[in-house]
Amino acid sequence: MADMKFSYETLNKFCIDAFGRFGFSAEESKIITDVLLLSDLYGIESHGTQRIARYHKNIVDGEILIDRKPEIVKESPVSAVIDGHDGMGQVIGHFAMELAIRKAKESGIGMVVARNSNHYGIAGYYAKMACDQGLIGISMTNTAPLMVPTFGSRSMLGTNPMAVSMPADPYPFFFDVATTVVTRGKVEVYNKLEKPMPEGWAIDSTGKVSSDASRVISDLKAKTGGILPLGGATEKMGSHKGYGFGMIVELFTGIIGLSNTSAHTYEGGKGKISHSFIAIDPSIFGDPAEIKAHLSNYLEELRNSPKAEGETRIYTHGEKEIFAMADRMENGINVNVKTVKEMKELAVYLGMDVKAYLGEEAAAL
Amino acid sequence: MADMKFSYETLNKFCIDAFGRFGFSAEESKIITDVLLLSDLYGIESHGTQRIARYHKNIVDGEILIDRKPEIVKESPVSAVIDGHDGMGQVIGHFAMELAIRKAKESGIGMVVARNSNHYGIAGYYAKMACDQGLIGISMTNTAPLMVPTFGSRSMLGTNPMAVSMPADPYPFFFDVATTVVTRGKVEVYNKLEKPMPEGWAIDSTGKVSSDASRVISDLKAKTGGILPLGGATEKMGSHKGYGFGMIVELFTGIIGLSNTSAHTYEGGKGKISHSFIAIDPSIFGDPAEIKAHLSNYLEELRNSPKAEGETRIYTHGEKEIFAMADRMENGINVNVKTVKEMKELAVYLGMDVKAYLGEEAAAL
Repeated sequence: MADMKFSYETLNKFCIDAFGRFGFSAEESKIITDVLLLSDLYGIESHGTQRIARYHKNIVDGEILIDRKPEIVKESPVSAVIDGHDGMGQVIGHFAMELAIRKAKESGIGMVVARNSNHYGIAGYYAKMACDQGLIGISMTNTAPLMVPTFGSRSMLGTNPMAVSMPADPYPFFFDVATTVVTRGKVEVYNKLEKPMPEGWAIDSTGKVSSDASRVISDLKAKTGGILPLGGATEKMGSHKGYGFGMIVELFTGIIGLSNTSAHTYEGGKGKISHSFIAIDPSIFGDPAEIKAHLSNYLEELRNSPKAEGETRIYTHGEKEIFAMADRMENGINVNVKTVKEMKELAVYLGMDVKAYLGEEAAAL
Repeated sequence: MADMKFSYETLNKFCIDAFGRFGFSAEESKIITDVLLLSDLYGIESHGTQRIARYHKNIVDGEILIDRKPEIVKESPVSAVIDGHDGMGQVIGHFAMELAIRKAKESGIGMVVARNSNHYGIAGYYAKMACDQGLIGISMTNTAPLMVPTFGSRSMLGTNPMAVSMPADPYPFFFDVATTVVTRGKVEVYNKLEKPMPEGWAIDSTGKVSSDASRVISDLKAKTGGILPLGGATEKMGSHKGYGFGMIVELFTGIIGLSNTSAHTYEGGKGKISHSFIAIDPSIFGDPAEIKAHLSNYLEELRNSPKAEGETRIYTHGEKEIFAMADRMENGINVNVKTVKEMKELAVYLGMDVKAYLGEEAAAL
């Protein structure tokens, strides 16, 4: 389906006001919008404005409770445990990473785990929060069950993303990936296009590798089959390694949070997602400016290293996102027409003037 | 080549006495031996007793300096930087993880980076040290350059292993993997067998995927080509993800250690390897017994989850090592005859009674 283009300002104003009408405070609405729009700007559409209608449905269904505030239930100078009380993931995540940052500034390291949360958008947003303040930032989250353990046929882990960001020039190191080969979103794209998926992305209910996206999605709905860990289906290509990186995310979220592992999220009408947030002040190891320069030099050395035949450039992590953001700030953000239609319907429901917010074309959809 | 079998006690006594004759103290010899033998017991022969002759050569060549002691050059309640002064990797690693453990017990989290070190054996040994004391243990190390960044044709990162261990019953979670698809050792095995390697393990100097192990090894000696990141050669299968996990190891070793990145190790006749060691006391998040039970239940749930067709079991990380250790403690440790011959020659050089230490068969080699 075709895309429509909106400026950052248009989407920002629309989202802030829509979340305000959901019942969030001005500050909360700004935080949620900021997480969604960074995702759109970075080119990760699956976690951007297209989520707004789904979040609204989750709120209407009582899965996300807008009046709940994150609560610190355990704390030390270097750590905290937060109970999100089934509130909005972004609000909980922002609160938790701010706390981790404060602890890192005071004690060198801050590590915060949050439980009873919901989908929090891109993990990288929270890692970036720390990086923007000169710290090393890490965030991880468990998710709905999607990853099958090596030799299994049912998803027992989530896509379990891990994000790490660290200051560098001319742009920071920014790494934000699922520990599965691909995300569920990629499987859904192949399903929509009715194209066979590449071998080694997913398995069906038999546990055999399948390139049939439609079957994988219907099997997932029946709680069987799933997406393969980074490294694919066989130990020969390192499947057990991707499965292990996914496990690290489980350890640092649901396990130490004494909360639901991915396999038991979204049971009983609540998300019950857990996240973790780590901030580290590099000055506990050395002069931060020197460390930043050392990383910047290494990243440049990587980009300038010899290319494979037929390749013209080597990327370092975070570069593509920076270029995507510059492009979208200048040329606008593409939004799928289906999403625009959802936004329009939501706006009507919320009593917003669609034409004033999104323009005539959107209003006419 | 055939293997010979030795009891744990035989190898333990041989190694301790050999390292003593190298010039290490009794305590240091015990530590180094312990790291090597855990590797043999866990079935990771590449990092076991077969390393002893190579370490001896490194010492004779002046690459490893046996009289150097690890020095704490920067410290906070949660962190430390250690200068290894080109000493023995295992001695530095053991010292650093003990320090991280002490800090974790006092402050909740301890994070120690060590620079100017050498090969330290399996990363998992140090993660296990923390786990054995009821903590979460993490260790990472950079290595000689071996991993090519996605779209590159020269190795700019190491195999960069990452190990995580955490208490659980009936055995702990123990994850210790290179962030490359495979280790250099695997490529060397295919070279010795003159067998084509699986596609997607390594590239030659052109940057093209190669199954020719002999070419990859000779290209590596000429400082070109290399082993692929976990996820292989293409972004479609997640190559950039493995490359990113390798980068995390660079950040936490050579970058924050203000020391050599993998690309610049083994320059100027010294290893210049950096490691990091993290210990986390789970009690900062909740009752450690409850957290341990929660993890144990989840691991059991994973093992009991539905299997793929044709598969009979799902492993959790660390199980294979526990089984390997039980087998080797009962039935002995296989050592390649070539390694036994090296050990014999070393013993003769060190003035040890080969027959008394390793038996008649070894003495006759």
